[in-house]
Amino acid sequence: MSLELLTLNNPVFKSFTFWAGVLVVKMLAMSLLTAIQRFKTKTFANPEDLMSPKLKVKFDDPNVERVRRAHRNDLENILPFFAIGLLYTLTNPSAFLAINLFRAVGISRIVHTLVYAITLSRDV
Amino acid sequence: MSLELLTLNNPVFKSFTFWAGVLVVKMLAMSLLTAIQRFKTKTFANPEDLMSPKLKVKFDDPNVERVRRAHRNDLENILPFFAIGLLYTLTNPSAFLAINLFRAVGISRIVHTLVYAITLSRDV
Amino acid sequence: MSLELLTLNNPVFKSFTFWAGVLVVKMLAMSLLTAIQRFKTKTFANPEDLMSPKLKVKFDDPNVERVRRAHRNDLENILPFFAIGLLYTLTNPSAFLAINLFRAVGISRIVHTLVYAITLSRDV
Repeated sequence: MSLELLTLNNPVFKSFTFWAGVLVVKMLAMSLLTAIQRFKTKTFANPEDLMSPKLKVKFDDPNVERVRRAHRNDLENILPFFAIGLLYTLTNPSAFLAINLFRAVGISRIVHTLVYAITLSRDV
Repeated sequence: MSLELLTLNNPVFKSFTFWAGVLVVKMLAMSLLTAIQRFKTKTFANPEDLMSPKLKVKFDDPNVERVRRAHRNDLENILPFFAIGLLYTLTNPSAFLAINLFRAVGISRIVHTLVYAITLSRDV
Repeated sequence: MSLELLTLNNPVFKSFTFWAGVLVVKMLAMSLLTAIQRFKTKTFANPEDLMSPKLKVKFDDPNVERVRRAHRNDLENILPFFAIGLLYTLTNPSAFLAINLFRAVGISRIVHTLVYAITLSRDV
């Protein structure tokens, strides 16, 4: 029973693995997004990163801080999902319900990033 | 053997699942606690959240920052526990020891939140 | 099949468990490193932590903030590795590839801490 639950023969585990993969890639992309904003606004947190002697370390650029808040929000929500989603899969839930719940989590986290970290950052 | 370890027939796994569930709910409640402190002290980090044109974004309210530090402390401690607790369960440990260790983690994290983020925030 | 994957008879799982253990210990040590820097520079974030009435809460010490950024970087990278590494192990990958990938992650995270949080902090 438990043997089958953690194989790709189980559609619930397959769906969980898919969305976990998508969300890990999305989270790692936040580091890239932060780096892009840091270079665009010339906001660096480490003295050794300063590209010219005229720059100073800066911690309060609104665009950089917005991406960092979005990244932290991912840590607060996606990482517990990995733990609870795996345990939920092991309870052998209804496939229809579980797959749609995983979809809802995955899609809503992607929408969160698009709206909060990308669209809104232009208006600041 | 490993088959049985990740089912609710295993009292260690049952205890781990219970405390993981409690701690995920506790962690998600930290977002709510932050929101409550933000509204109470009118401290918002995003320009689009400001409720009146007289307010400005603010990052240094001591009560909001205290809850955010408590939340970050959860990320630093509870999330590694999810990983290591699952691997520990797979080593087929003594049930008495494992269940009491999980209890100690769960209870001490709840006490941490009550003392650090709730009781002490009134004194600031 | 899946039965064998999550036991120490599987060299991939054994390697994953080893590196997960090493990285959890490394992450928990970051809290200690932060505490050391806090006492060395007398930088405390909570009013109840101030050791003498002359001190004030301070959030901008560069050495403390550097360790905290290193710790946050761990949360952003090591914690998703725990999730994705476990799922990867369940796909029954090539042992040679998987074990060397886990080694690369483990060693590079230790080097990151040594360089970023320890060596560079002396120069600030």
